[in-house]
Amino acid sequence: MRKIGTEELEDIALGATVLGTGGGGDPYIGKLMAIQAIEEYGSVTLLDPDELDDEDLIVPTSGMGAPTILIEKVPNGDEVFKAFQSLEKYLGKEIKATMPIEAGGVNSMIPFALAARLGIPIVDADGMGRAFPELQMVTFSIIGASSTPMALADEKGNNLILNTINNKWTEDLARGATITMGGSTFVASYPLSGSEVKEAGIRNIVSFSQEIGEAIRIAKENKTDPIEALQSVTGGFILFEGKVIDIKRETKGGFARGNAELEGINDYNGKTLTLNFQNEHLVAKVDGEVVASVPDLITVHDKETGQPITTEGMKYGNRVLVMGIPCTDKWRCEKGLEIVGPKYFGYDIDYIPVEELADQD
Amino acid sequence: MRKIGTEELEDIALGATVLGTGGGGDPYIGKLMAIQAIEEYGSVTLLDPDELDDEDLIVPTSGMGAPTILIEKVPNGDEVFKAFQSLEKYLGKEIKATMPIEAGGVNSMIPFALAARLGIPIVDADGMGRAFPELQMVTFSIIGASSTPMALADEKGNNLILNTINNKWTEDLARGATITMGGSTFVASYPLSGSEVKEAGIRNIVSFSQEIGEAIRIAKENKTDPIEALQSVTGGFILFEGKVIDIKRETKGGFARGNAELEGINDYNGKTLTLNFQNEHLVAKVDGEVVASVPDLITVHDKETGQPITTEGMKYGNRVLVMGIPCTDKWRCEKGLEIVGPKYFGYDIDYIPVEELADQD
Repeated sequence: MRKIGTEELEDIALGATVLGTGGGGDPYIGKLMAIQAIEEYGSVTLLDPDELDDEDLIVPTSGMGAPTILIEKVPNGDEVFKAFQSLEKYLGKEIKATMPIEAGGVNSMIPFALAARLGIPIVDADGMGRAFPELQMVTFSIIGASSTPMALADEKGNNLILNTINNKWTEDLARGATITMGGSTFVASYPLSGSEVKEAGIRNIVSFSQEIGEAIRIAKENKTDPIEALQSVTGGFILFEGKVIDIKRETKGGFARGNAELEGINDYNGKTLTLNFQNEHLVAKVDGEVVASVPDLITVHDKETGQPITTEGMKYGNRVLVMGIPCTDKWRCEKGLEIVGPKYFGYDIDYIPVEELADQD
Repeated sequence: MRKIGTEELEDIALGATVLGTGGGGDPYIGKLMAIQAIEEYGSVTLLDPDELDDEDLIVPTSGMGAPTILIEKVPNGDEVFKAFQSLEKYLGKEIKATMPIEAGGVNSMIPFALAARLGIPIVDADGMGRAFPELQMVTFSIIGASSTPMALADEKGNNLILNTINNKWTEDLARGATITMGGSTFVASYPLSGSEVKEAGIRNIVSFSQEIGEAIRIAKENKTDPIEALQSVTGGFILFEGKVIDIKRETKGGFARGNAELEGINDYNGKTLTLNFQNEHLVAKVDGEVVASVPDLITVHDKETGQPITTEGMKYGNRVLVMGIPCTDKWRCEKGLEIVGPKYFGYDIDYIPVEELADQD
């Protein structure tokens, strides 16, 4: 158990944006919400999963929708509060704590905004260990935990309670409602027991985000190489250095989908990298050869500062460094790859861990 | 208070199909569900609104979706039961009775199937006095009654509870969910007080449906003119007699939309009638002149038998008679016409009551 204040939040938001792998929303918006809440209501207690009782009720909170829309529709913090409260009322049981469902600029921060306001703790765990575009893509799906009852709220005052037969139905229904509601909503989903969080949660995700953010910040303060610092914290591999020569992006079916093309520079002169994304980066290829794919993390950085660049922040002419970071082992099993492997996203490729692909070079 | 058994149901389903004005679903499917339930659980008590206490909780039940889809996806009666039960649990108060939300082949019968199973009464009132395609198109909207909390269920086992800021939002969210769920769902909506039913409900709609059905049945038994009998019960006007020479229909945005063209016969030789529909018939024109429009009822019949023909039952070559029936006075006010007048449906015409249009001939 430790306290998280606004200083820690800065590092957490920055590190979570790296783990957001291009998606997960703009860290500036997420941080604004969380910092405002902590300044108003005080710091937030971060619990280790082992500090939970097995019977505790834990409900992750998050935003849903294309990050491209969140930029135009800044949340006021009230939406997630309403979703959380309507779910707690519906369940008729006190919710002990909230937690992030994924890492990302916005979704790492929403639980902090809520927890500060309600004076409840946050658990240092999430369901992805990174960001993924769809709601069923959590390690809780591997152990058969239900995403429902779930509450979904918009900024206008509409809200839904969903009860579904499986987590893909939740995704489809919640995504459809999110589109109807204008493209962005806030949800309280996956009511979990303490024992489920302990079994299937990705532990230390908040602390890991903080370490990553710290590494970038300290490298800047000490004028040392931020990319080396990032590699040392994450175990990541440099996949490419290049200049963005093409970027296509559209908000479709409730997602920001697209691809980017990078022309190599320095060691990668003469080579071309392509990135495919659906909110998050899914597959990276150099000259047509896969160099990393989901569930491993593909992150894009400013080479000089190490700052992560989201897909909506990537612009023509940007000089960037692309990294591949091994995902949590929880995804590297048959059931995990069924849920978040490249085939699920429609790519006819076998998943090979990024460290093995790096060895082949 | 009186009892409704399977014999009465036959007449009610037939008459409600007339009031369904081309939509409202296939009476055969609706009747099947209701007759099965009454045979299994016994007859249903029909209450006059005046028999309700002002504080009683009444919840209308209905199907949602394009009637074209209901034909392929026959409901098993369990869906509406689940929607009703989940709403009752959510509201935490006993629901005294159900009622139809609209007249129509399916939606007049669903409340009977449910009421028989649960042993609760049905109120002799609805919110439309006919069928309309959208959920907010009820007289309860005129007095500001909310459609939510509302429950929506599909046949797979998914269900939603909706809370919205207005009834058009309920329509949009429920329609979207219905499309995601395969095009047809069952809902328990508009939780009403007894006093709201008394104030804004269209009274005697079940009894009126029964009278219309009886008129058609007795004309057949006595070999008298069914159209005359229908006119005498409904106050309807004959608008056209003709042969269907063109019918376009598509299921789009969760509705069956289209239009039909009829070539005149007998008194209407040389004339052409066009019908536009969105589940229900909206506007009828003869040689380009409006002869009837929403909220008045435009009904299509077999001339020999008086049997109502739904839009999905209308076939090329059919010889049919088209009638215009004055709607309830409750729709003939500024607020009513804002909700269900021709302009709401995108037709740039002023509403003129069908009896005035008939006088102009």
